[in-house]
Amino acid sequence: MKDLEYKIGIDIGGTNTSLGLVDTNGRCIKKINFSTSANKSIEEFISKLARSVREICMIDTHEVHPVGIGIAAPAAQHRAGLIQNPANLLWGTINIADLLKQQYDLPITVINDSNAVALGEMKYGLARGMKNFVAITLGTGLGAGVVMNGELVNGANGFAGELGHIIVEPNGRKCGCKRRGCVETYVSATGMCRTAFELMSSELDASKLRERTYSNLTAKVLYDLAIEGDILARKTFEVTGEIFGKMLASTVVSFDPEAIILSGGLVHAGEFLFKPTLKSFNENVLSSLRGKIAVFPSQFSDGEAAILGASSVIDINEPISAE
Amino acid sequence: MKDLEYKIGIDIGGTNTSLGLVDTNGRCIKKINFSTSANKSIEEFISKLARSVREICMIDTHEVHPVGIGIAAPAAQHRAGLIQNPANLLWGTINIADLLKQQYDLPITVINDSNAVALGEMKYGLARGMKNFVAITLGTGLGAGVVMNGELVNGANGFAGELGHIIVEPNGRKCGCKRRGCVETYVSATGMCRTAFELMSSELDASKLRERTYSNLTAKVLYDLAIEGDILARKTFEVTGEIFGKMLASTVVSFDPEAIILSGGLVHAGEFLFKPTLKSFNENVLSSLRGKIAVFPSQFSDGEAAILGASSVIDINEPISAE
Repeated sequence: MKDLEYKIGIDIGGTNTSLGLVDTNGRCIKKINFSTSANKSIEEFISKLARSVREICMIDTHEVHPVGIGIAAPAAQHRAGLIQNPANLLWGTINIADLLKQQYDLPITVINDSNAVALGEMKYGLARGMKNFVAITLGTGLGAGVVMNGELVNGANGFAGELGHIIVEPNGRKCGCKRRGCVETYVSATGMCRTAFELMSSELDASKLRERTYSNLTAKVLYDLAIEGDILARKTFEVTGEIFGKMLASTVVSFDPEAIILSGGLVHAGEFLFKPTLKSFNENVLSSLRGKIAVFPSQFSDGEAAILGASSVIDINEPISAE
Repeated sequence: MKDLEYKIGIDIGGTNTSLGLVDTNGRCIKKINFSTSANKSIEEFISKLARSVREICMIDTHEVHPVGIGIAAPAAQHRAGLIQNPANLLWGTINIADLLKQQYDLPITVINDSNAVALGEMKYGLARGMKNFVAITLGTGLGAGVVMNGELVNGANGFAGELGHIIVEPNGRKCGCKRRGCVETYVSATGMCRTAFELMSSELDASKLRERTYSNLTAKVLYDLAIEGDILARKTFEVTGEIFGKMLASTVVSFDPEAIILSGGLVHAGEFLFKPTLKSFNENVLSSLRGKIAVFPSQFSDGEAAILGASSVIDINEPISAE
């Protein structure tokens, strides 16, 4: 077993952190998850992370020596190695690369989680061979990574592809970014819960949703109710898909991608979300582009694209000499 | 005078066609305009164009032999050399490169007019040295050329950067593209006229606009009235700027450019348009990007960026051997 062949990809999320041991063929041969516990100290997180790195390097009784670690995280600044005051982690701005390096003296690079997903899809997923595509992650928020002319689009300050903050409704819902009408206030797990509450106010259909508080409603509850046939839960998906389809139609006139690849927790809603999304997309896409742009779910399991993408950037920043 | 040093750049617009003789330093040393007469036959246009090419090659009594011709046109397909059924020219789909080649056996390349403007700015204008920027042209419609990572973003089908068709108002104004709410139905010369009519219906201010028919209202009339102090004309600019600023805020989360460069007829409205646009942009831009993105008018005279950009692509497609 040649050590040179392994890299570690890490995906730090607001709820869970996943690690993957990735071989040269881009296969994730071992995976570990732990709870991020974003409300605890960064020191605690780093020691948990270091333990997991040690654990993932043990294959049976053999210890693998990976050539580097790639970290995908929200609000990550690739060049500086920083995680910059992300909304759903309470650590402020930290240099995650330096902190982990104190435990592991390996090349460590940091990349924005949405960009990691796009890279994972480009190198090992459904976007292989594509020069122009958009990868959208639908979780608590809406994240996106954009590849144009075969390269990740970062923009001047690393904010390119922040499509969750496209304004789709002038004077619409208040967003965490302090503005109003951003698409992620409608199209995301939290956006869907808000839509459910709006529908409870505007419609009269009976629904089990009416027994829920705002605080204990989740996208999973909406999905389960939709399966049961709850009319308001189903309408919630329809409204979400309609807004999402229009947003994709605008995305398409910005980037004209070959494909839009969807991943993240909401993708598990399957047809409940996809059907109204594709209907609305086809109705709203520029006619010259109708039928030309594929929209489909990722084939990776949750978080794997980010792990693979993060592991793949190690090469970019810190080339490893052949041994 | 070495012939090798000259190229011809042509900008075909719905109203006027401009030709420029461009030297190796990107200086437009001679310029000719003629009326496109888009309602007449393409044969008539081509013979007019050929005459103008001949004319622009005469410097005093000396005949210059340009090394190639670059043509900027709406709805142009770079690779195929086509102008594809543009909205404001009635020639259907034509192979402009082949048609002109029958008269001039020179390398002829065709490029989308908005992309030509972006290239002109990148090679010879205010975007020199920038790797990421957006060039927006405000004329009859709203066109844009996008450069990311130092390269023009064309997308998979050549439609990337068609920012005029970003939807800013769900169920908003009907657009020529058959959809509703596209930003160019608000932010463009025609969009402003529509806004003036909407304001006449919603407001009660006295205004000379109330003596105008829809058909004989132009952006120039609005500008002249705004200078006179006409309240509705001024409000028209304010409303336009407010919508434009919001659209620029969305553009910024898509592309995160270093700068947004504005050109086209509407730019002549100066502060009437810029002031409300910048106010709205600053109010609506993602706070992490506030103050980081420059928005300013092009320093080229009308159409010159497109001429320079078109002349610059001759090299890209058909390299000219050194003599």
